[in-house]
Amino acid sequence: MPRMNRRTLFGIAGAGAAAAAGAGAVLAAEHVLPASVGGGPDDVVPFRGARQAGITTAAQDHLYFVALDVTTTDRAELVDLLQRWTLAAERLTTGAEVAVDGAIGGHPEAPPQDTGEALGLPPARLTLTFGVGPSLFTRDGVDRFGIADRRPPKLIDLPLFAGDAIEPGRSNGDLCIQACADDPQVAVHAVRNLIRMGFGTTAVRWAQMGYGRTSSTVVGQATPRNMFGFKDGTSNITAEDTAGLARHVWAAAEDGADWMTGGSYLVARRIRMAIEPWDRTSLLEQEEIVGRHKGSGAALGATDEFAEVDFSATRPDGSGPLVGMDSHVRLAHSSTLGGVRILRRGYNFIDGTDAEGHLDAGLFFIAFVRDPGAQFVPMQQALSTKDIMMEYLVHTSSALFACPPGVGTGDHWGRTLFGNPA
Amino acid sequence: MPRMNRRTLFGIAGAGAAAAAGAGAVLAAEHVLPASVGGGPDDVVPFRGARQAGITTAAQDHLYFVALDVTTTDRAELVDLLQRWTLAAERLTTGAEVAVDGAIGGHPEAPPQDTGEALGLPPARLTLTFGVGPSLFTRDGVDRFGIADRRPPKLIDLPLFAGDAIEPGRSNGDLCIQACADDPQVAVHAVRNLIRMGFGTTAVRWAQMGYGRTSSTVVGQATPRNMFGFKDGTSNITAEDTAGLARHVWAAAEDGADWMTGGSYLVARRIRMAIEPWDRTSLLEQEEIVGRHKGSGAALGATDEFAEVDFSATRPDGSGPLVGMDSHVRLAHSSTLGGVRILRRGYNFIDGTDAEGHLDAGLFFIAFVRDPGAQFVPMQQALSTKDIMMEYLVHTSSALFACPPGVGTGDHWGRTLFGNPA
Repeated sequence: MPRMNRRTLFGIAGAGAAAAAGAGAVLAAEHVLPASVGGGPDDVVPFRGARQAGITTAAQDHLYFVALDVTTTDRAELVDLLQRWTLAAERLTTGAEVAVDGAIGGHPEAPPQDTGEALGLPPARLTLTFGVGPSLFTRDGVDRFGIADRRPPKLIDLPLFAGDAIEPGRSNGDLCIQACADDPQVAVHAVRNLIRMGFGTTAVRWAQMGYGRTSSTVVGQATPRNMFGFKDGTSNITAEDTAGLARHVWAAAEDGADWMTGGSYLVARRIRMAIEPWDRTSLLEQEEIVGRHKGSGAALGATDEFAEVDFSATRPDGSGPLVGMDSHVRLAHSSTLGGVRILRRGYNFIDGTDAEGHLDAGLFFIAFVRDPGAQFVPMQQALSTKDIMMEYLVHTSSALFACPPGVGTGDHWGRTLFGNPA
Repeated sequence: MPRMNRRTLFGIAGAGAAAAAGAGAVLAAEHVLPASVGGGPDDVVPFRGARQAGITTAAQDHLYFVALDVTTTDRAELVDLLQRWTLAAERLTTGAEVAVDGAIGGHPEAPPQDTGEALGLPPARLTLTFGVGPSLFTRDGVDRFGIADRRPPKLIDLPLFAGDAIEPGRSNGDLCIQACADDPQVAVHAVRNLIRMGFGTTAVRWAQMGYGRTSSTVVGQATPRNMFGFKDGTSNITAEDTAGLARHVWAAAEDGADWMTGGSYLVARRIRMAIEPWDRTSLLEQEEIVGRHKGSGAALGATDEFAEVDFSATRPDGSGPLVGMDSHVRLAHSSTLGGVRILRRGYNFIDGTDAEGHLDAGLFFIAFVRDPGAQFVPMQQALSTKDIMMEYLVHTSSALFACPPGVGTGDHWGRTLFGNPA
């Protein structure tokens, strides 16, 4: 079958478009690479599979993340939306619109089924990743949808960490959708149309735009830089590390919630960075805080970014360890954390300037882990209390979501949680 | 000489890097195209020339725009900054860092000269366009820098238009820098480093990020779509239209300020769009408001996006004109405005969600004109009072800047305004 996307779909109506939506040149998620390492805007990341896309998929350049509250109390209505969302998400990832009868869809005297701003844009490796928050199971002690007993033990309530300045209005949520794409308009369009489909059933709680990836998730992706100018996520778990993913990322049967087997837990933290004070610190101090060289990304004293960090090396004058005891790289390293690792998938953000003209910018941290309480919590407890970088960081939002396994043919978001609808 | 950019510059110190900064594979600005029509991330848009880049340059995918207040009262200090900015801007557009001695620059015990987050990124067709606002000439009646008598007659104080909800904190400014690039991190990095160089002399007044271009400025660029899902700027003035540019965009000697000859006036308007109400209107109503078909972008009743609009055509039932009298395309058309045209260069923006969970999104409108009072003002007066689209729009910021002609060899930003420094 020929490659189909918005460009070719445009003007095709009815069954043709519906059939075309599944006909993209889909590649194995792990092998769909960003333009910088050989992928292209016409590549399609497969939507269906054993795992959700957007976790180990080579990190795309742009993010639009939304957390939603469920406003209905009707379980069937929610499940119906999840079914409709799934079909729409599948279409969107192929580069099609959400409309099923024509490019825009619907009767001229009705609102267009699709909002239209992505017409003519390529698939741009769009992925849509779905998760559910603790509040979906119970809120104010109420079992809202008859699933209170299915809350996974790993879906904890994240604690408050030292120095947190969490804004409730942009934290938590009943549901989340993570949209990643190499074109921001494609990511925004997808989320906007899903939000629109949910009108009356769900409402936006908060959203975050990310403009530059700060993580590599496959071997061969250059390590990007964060707003402090440092390479970030050098020792990330990659798609190729099957054993690492099984141990640290994918939920397994013994983790206590069958419906999550093959899924993962998404930690989201909006970390505002004090850009201007940071820019006034010396190179030496910056490098000591991070524990790496700013230029190469190699650990202090080393030259290879990817070489194992030698935490036993001492300064030439014997005055202490070369990589400081309270440096970021040491505190966040698996060897310091009893073997804990996480899969990072964050993005830089800029939300304008504050009243003082300072950048309201930083890192929208996203991590996928198998067990937040055993992985993210101890890591963040160590960082929040010991990391000297914390002087330049404030966490302003916090959320945890359970992202179920991928959807197979005929499957839909939340099916393993809610079961097949009656 | 070989192509040099950040990738090759990295690690090259001193005179080598300084020399390399001017050695990019620069092409004529009009012929540097976005990736969609044949350009690439390694292309460099020439910084120096008779005109400033970033006006007729093929619109890049991303914008970071900043308006600054001058905090010094010392003219020489301001001119010194403009000279240093110019050299830094030239380096940045070649893909180099602002540091002149090595990639990061400076002594390890001093703050790095460059903030570093663009190390390893390509030039991405970065342009930096400079302008001065009315308040630079006089503020509260004070001739701040001895240039009050040089304020161009065309640099008016923009009036308040019907329906305006202008926020002073993100309007106006003494100076502006428009950064456009195909990689948002490259645009943000450039502005951040220029802001940093200005510390103590200038301060950020407001800034705006734009994530998707809404204008084409060269023939061959596909017309992009705005957040209403419609193609925007179909009849824009393009770089190839030399006569149109001379008549409508470039300031000439007879316009009353010698130092602006060859420059242009930049109008900036942040236009918030009522996305959710728009999405609930019918396709028919949307198309009648715009006066164009949503899919093709052609005028109502036509099929070719670029065909001349036939404003005399009537509906089949004779009930009125096919393209409504208060449609956007008619009111904004040069034939309705006595021949007025503008060069549009706007971007979509998303600044998160408001307290109701509605998108704080819209169009960051940028236009370059020769005479704002004779071009933008009558156009906006017509639109603000008659355009039915106004029901879905609120202008939340407003600014006007005089962008001088380009800088030649040895020249610097503001030289034609301030003269050569003593």
